[in-house]
Amino acid sequence: MVQLMPATPLTAIPTDIVCAADYERYARNHINDAAWAYLQGGAADELTFAANCDAWRKLELWPRALADVRNGHTRCTLFGDTLAHPIILAPVATQRVFHAEGELASVLAAGVMGSAAVVSTQASISLENVAENAQGPLWFQLYWQGSRAATLTLIKRAEAAGYRALVFTVDAPISGVRNREQRAGFSVPGQVTQVNVPPITLPILQEGKSAVFDGFMAIAPVWDDINWLVNHISLPILFKGIMHADDASRAVTAGAAGIVVSNHGGRVLDSVPATLSALSGVVAAVNGAVPVLVDGGIRRGTDIIKARALGATAVMIGRPYIHALATAGALGVAHLIRLLREELEIAMALTGCKTLDDINQSVLRTDSATEIL
Amino acid sequence: MVQLMPATPLTAIPTDIVCAADYERYARNHINDAAWAYLQGGAADELTFAANCDAWRKLELWPRALADVRNGHTRCTLFGDTLAHPIILAPVATQRVFHAEGELASVLAAGVMGSAAVVSTQASISLENVAENAQGPLWFQLYWQGSRAATLTLIKRAEAAGYRALVFTVDAPISGVRNREQRAGFSVPGQVTQVNVPPITLPILQEGKSAVFDGFMAIAPVWDDINWLVNHISLPILFKGIMHADDASRAVTAGAAGIVVSNHGGRVLDSVPATLSALSGVVAAVNGAVPVLVDGGIRRGTDIIKARALGATAVMIGRPYIHALATAGALGVAHLIRLLREELEIAMALTGCKTLDDINQSVLRTDSATEIL
Amino acid sequence: MVQLMPATPLTAIPTDIVCAADYERYARNHINDAAWAYLQGGAADELTFAANCDAWRKLELWPRALADVRNGHTRCTLFGDTLAHPIILAPVATQRVFHAEGELASVLAAGVMGSAAVVSTQASISLENVAENAQGPLWFQLYWQGSRAATLTLIKRAEAAGYRALVFTVDAPISGVRNREQRAGFSVPGQVTQVNVPPITLPILQEGKSAVFDGFMAIAPVWDDINWLVNHISLPILFKGIMHADDASRAVTAGAAGIVVSNHGGRVLDSVPATLSALSGVVAAVNGAVPVLVDGGIRRGTDIIKARALGATAVMIGRPYIHALATAGALGVAHLIRLLREELEIAMALTGCKTLDDINQSVLRTDSATEIL
Amino acid sequence: MVQLMPATPLTAIPTDIVCAADYERYARNHINDAAWAYLQGGAADELTFAANCDAWRKLELWPRALADVRNGHTRCTLFGDTLAHPIILAPVATQRVFHAEGELASVLAAGVMGSAAVVSTQASISLENVAENAQGPLWFQLYWQGSRAATLTLIKRAEAAGYRALVFTVDAPISGVRNREQRAGFSVPGQVTQVNVPPITLPILQEGKSAVFDGFMAIAPVWDDINWLVNHISLPILFKGIMHADDASRAVTAGAAGIVVSNHGGRVLDSVPATLSALSGVVAAVNGAVPVLVDGGIRRGTDIIKARALGATAVMIGRPYIHALATAGALGVAHLIRLLREELEIAMALTGCKTLDDINQSVLRTDSATEIL
Repeated sequence: MVQLMPATPLTAIPTDIVCAADYERYARNHINDAAWAYLQGGAADELTFAANCDAWRKLELWPRALADVRNGHTRCTLFGDTLAHPIILAPVATQRVFHAEGELASVLAAGVMGSAAVVSTQASISLENVAENAQGPLWFQLYWQGSRAATLTLIKRAEAAGYRALVFTVDAPISGVRNREQRAGFSVPGQVTQVNVPPITLPILQEGKSAVFDGFMAIAPVWDDINWLVNHISLPILFKGIMHADDASRAVTAGAAGIVVSNHGGRVLDSVPATLSALSGVVAAVNGAVPVLVDGGIRRGTDIIKARALGATAVMIGRPYIHALATAGALGVAHLIRLLREELEIAMALTGCKTLDDINQSVLRTDSATEIL
Repeated sequence: MVQLMPATPLTAIPTDIVCAADYERYARNHINDAAWAYLQGGAADELTFAANCDAWRKLELWPRALADVRNGHTRCTLFGDTLAHPIILAPVATQRVFHAEGELASVLAAGVMGSAAVVSTQASISLENVAENAQGPLWFQLYWQGSRAATLTLIKRAEAAGYRALVFTVDAPISGVRNREQRAGFSVPGQVTQVNVPPITLPILQEGKSAVFDGFMAIAPVWDDINWLVNHISLPILFKGIMHADDASRAVTAGAAGIVVSNHGGRVLDSVPATLSALSGVVAAVNGAVPVLVDGGIRRGTDIIKARALGATAVMIGRPYIHALATAGALGVAHLIRLLREELEIAMALTGCKTLDDINQSVLRTDSATEIL
Repeated sequence: MVQLMPATPLTAIPTDIVCAADYERYARNHINDAAWAYLQGGAADELTFAANCDAWRKLELWPRALADVRNGHTRCTLFGDTLAHPIILAPVATQRVFHAEGELASVLAAGVMGSAAVVSTQASISLENVAENAQGPLWFQLYWQGSRAATLTLIKRAEAAGYRALVFTVDAPISGVRNREQRAGFSVPGQVTQVNVPPITLPILQEGKSAVFDGFMAIAPVWDDINWLVNHISLPILFKGIMHADDASRAVTAGAAGIVVSNHGGRVLDSVPATLSALSGVVAAVNGAVPVLVDGGIRRGTDIIKARALGATAVMIGRPYIHALATAGALGVAHLIRLLREELEIAMALTGCKTLDDINQSVLRTDSATEIL
Repeated sequence: MVQLMPATPLTAIPTDIVCAADYERYARNHINDAAWAYLQGGAADELTFAANCDAWRKLELWPRALADVRNGHTRCTLFGDTLAHPIILAPVATQRVFHAEGELASVLAAGVMGSAAVVSTQASISLENVAENAQGPLWFQLYWQGSRAATLTLIKRAEAAGYRALVFTVDAPISGVRNREQRAGFSVPGQVTQVNVPPITLPILQEGKSAVFDGFMAIAPVWDDINWLVNHISLPILFKGIMHADDASRAVTAGAAGIVVSNHGGRVLDSVPATLSALSGVVAAVNGAVPVLVDGGIRRGTDIIKARALGATAVMIGRPYIHALATAGALGVAHLIRLLREELEIAMALTGCKTLDDINQSVLRTDSATEIL
């Protein structure tokens, strides 16, 4: 495949973009080969990446007739903010790789559409700059900075900049085996920088030592660090990347204000379950103590109602909004959010759910989905 | 794909049309691109559309040897009319999009072949005109007209025109997310009109209100409307679009004379179960009080015997007869009905069923089909 | 596809024919389009045809190590004849469509290889002529001849000609909806004739009568005919086309000397189970009273050992030997039988079975195959 | 397909080789058509070959967050040798077919990377020569030599040459129906020889005798031979090719020092279960008495952790290292081992396992994998 120069972003939405998959189709023309491999690729054989999407598609919904849903709505409240709907932009690094306005554009769209957005530690625009330009609530995604002190310094900056919550990523102490990206030879282009923090220095390895166990994992956070951290911060902290019910319980005990069931979009460890498959176990373990969110494979409003039915308070989307960002900047992201919200509204109306709180397991045909549940 | 002018309808049946799938193949040449997207497309990712067909195919039949089925037949009685067989034409809107003679042709074929046909509120020929030209029993498909009064006015016209039953569609208060149709930019061509009733006016939305909850759903019928309606009509009324057993029970309590298990051909809410998967639950809930019909994915006589075995009194076909209509007008529709009936007869003969009443669960290999049942 | 003249049969076996599938690949070049559609096609959507093959492939075998199988063999005895192996040629009509020597070639090969062969009522060479040229035991496949008298006359000819058993086909009182064959417009070529019996005359239908119920089924045999028949013949009679356990029981009660579990190669009623799926039920119902054979989808020696493990005494092959016949005449058929027998021997050796009687359910991994069993 | 001359091996690793599958892709260019068919092909329809790989992919892993795995490692001890990791090179015959340096190259790579390697009876370089050049522990793969005496002679040579263990192959007394290889007409090229032992002479068959039962199986070892053998050797002996739990028990009773769950890479009897499907049963039967190893379809570090979780002590890889050997000789094999080991380390770190002993069933999502378990 010869890669031509990626097309410049569109300034109006083509009439044949009517759902998230259409943005993916368009985005291919607006992103170069290597960045496409980075964005689309998952770990190893991408089994988990595929499973994420497939699982939502396989779970069936029971439609209900003649229900009264007049004056229904999709509002929800999280960490003190009322959101127009439960669709939140997941943290995605270095968004200027995909559009010149990067995080500014996606955060703008989120605010206009009543969403919250999560800004990455690895953003290509400083967390303060993003916050100043936001029109809605922002959460700050946190990567451990190799030490407690460096991590706390970063958190304090996010607090000062007005972020409303921390989203601490716990599933990626090592970046995984992203073979598609490796084959494509992707690296962040020179003109784009992760401006918030300097790169983390890995320990120098002695002969015969392991880059994994003695390198990356030697500076990775462990539960003790979390216990310490929670006592030094004032913002609510969500743990993102929890899949196992026991980790969810432990996170709540440690002071988590929320859980994000996630496998990092299938980008870290391959052959882990779809997030849908982990959700019920985490919800049961958390038992209502804190909100549980979920990401991974959300592509339709019907996926969102299914997530709610399994106990999620809200969902995060990742790749889909980057597709929209690359295709048409803030306009694209806003349009995508509108499409998903409208799909959610229709799904609620046709299953007889007037509000998010009306959505429960009874809308699901679970008996045929035992393999994924 | 360059769309050439669609071919004019055939006036004789080619010898290689020997089943419904052959009409679908031929029809592609007789329908333009946009109308094809409208006809073939389902909601969103078309998961339900695919599931409808797949489910019938997956359910297996036990053949029986040496049974005495001499003088068998496929007759059944519905709402006072004896039909030659249990294959009924489902309501399909604006059939003049597909053939110049539109509803007149399909209704003619149904009458000649001993079928009943259901005429849509959104027909492209007036309900009175269709009724005058019919040769067999007609049922009238009813969309709620935004108010009780307007709806009742329409019903009275159908009663006056001699329709034998009402088929009230309850699954489509909003038209769903028909992405394939949207991408193709389909709209009903100028020369074809929905002549029975004027378009329904949606409420004007205030800032921040939802087109779904405050628009479409604000004028959608609810159970109270049904209770009122049933007391003001004399025709038997079937509820079409029931999938959940609880809705079936409620419909019977509300005075339904019949239930049509349907998901609108997968055109409204995607990822709902195949109609086959809903049928047994509805039949159990109705418990013999009224006839239960089913549509969605019926493409073979073997599908019809399976539907009967699961408790359906009759089936409706939709897209298949439109394929036949576009290919060869009334001649095509009549031929299609004959093919399906003959397939049904052969399936009955080879499973040892002399009449429709002989068909029961014992013809099914249900233990291997738990996922769809 | 432009059909060139089919290639003349080969007189030596190419080195790249090493299994049944290779003969299928070669046969395509030796059979014209219409005859290919007739041979390969099944009923309707060919679901059952596909299921037959798939089912054998899905069932897994446990290999066993270091077993002593020296002096093992594949011999079995059926109706007084000892066969070198349990691979029998199923009845196939008008084999001169596929090779000039037709049934003479296939029967010759069977005899040379120690097989029994079943000669069809609809053979293209007279049953007496075939019998005179045979080198091994022949069974005669019987179609009901419209009346008891005509049927008995045919049977007496078979008895007189030395056939060793009757194989009475009970699953095809009507030929089914063979759409692929219909689309191809196949008819038996003029130079090939079904020489044994004249075509059966169907009743003349009155207006409004059914070609199925009042035509074909009016002259089809029923259980009463069987009871009569069994008392008038001396040859052992197998019932071919039994799938339901209750029919198997009834056949045994009626005097069957054997059962052939068969769905006619998926050629009569589509969406019936794979024969593998019916086998266990029939074996249980017959409970050792008579031998149970099976056909449908047998393509490998491993399929044969699986059939034995499920309780079948022997298997029949159909299409595979016609592929070999068309490719290389009697030489091809003999080679095919040798390949299958050798595969069976290897499968027996590697599962630790010295004789056919050593094969039982313990060689199967049944717990993972509940869907097909 | 026109086969060009295979490309000469590479002397540096291309940057787009980042996992085992990449070596398979590259290897196609370095191996001629017939040898490729020999290497890649399995028995018959290659169902088992495919099942081996699919099964590992289907089993899901639970990631764990924030675990302390600092100073973790992958070391294990087998038969007195400490290996850097549990990835062992399976025996593969005549490796000079794939690279001029053959076994010398693969054994060198294994030693450098801290692996053990198993040298085949059918090696293309003498067992003594290989042993002299090795840098790590070698095991000797043993084929029965037709008699106890000849077999013992070969074993004594291996003992004398310093091999650390015997790997006695029990699943291939006959070479199976390798159709792909047969069609390609593969034979070992003239310049490559199986130098360790002369070809085994098969018995001369009398008329009517079976090449399987009276030929190959007449000189195959049986349990009695094993009982004798174990009393005459001093090296630990592993039984390779055990799939059934009862055979595993019997092997332990007979004195096995280890079991290798294997189906010979799907090359001998087709339609046997994936090795993953056999592993748990064997582990339960062995009950810790001796180490259980497994091969077949291992392509990822995640596969290795799954094997450990099901009770395997170590894994063997076969085709993957031949792909690496053909692509880039010893350098390729060493690189492949490094890739797999690093994938294993990452999988351990992300599932919270610091050492191999920490890996157990709790890392698996077994409830969704009942079909393969």
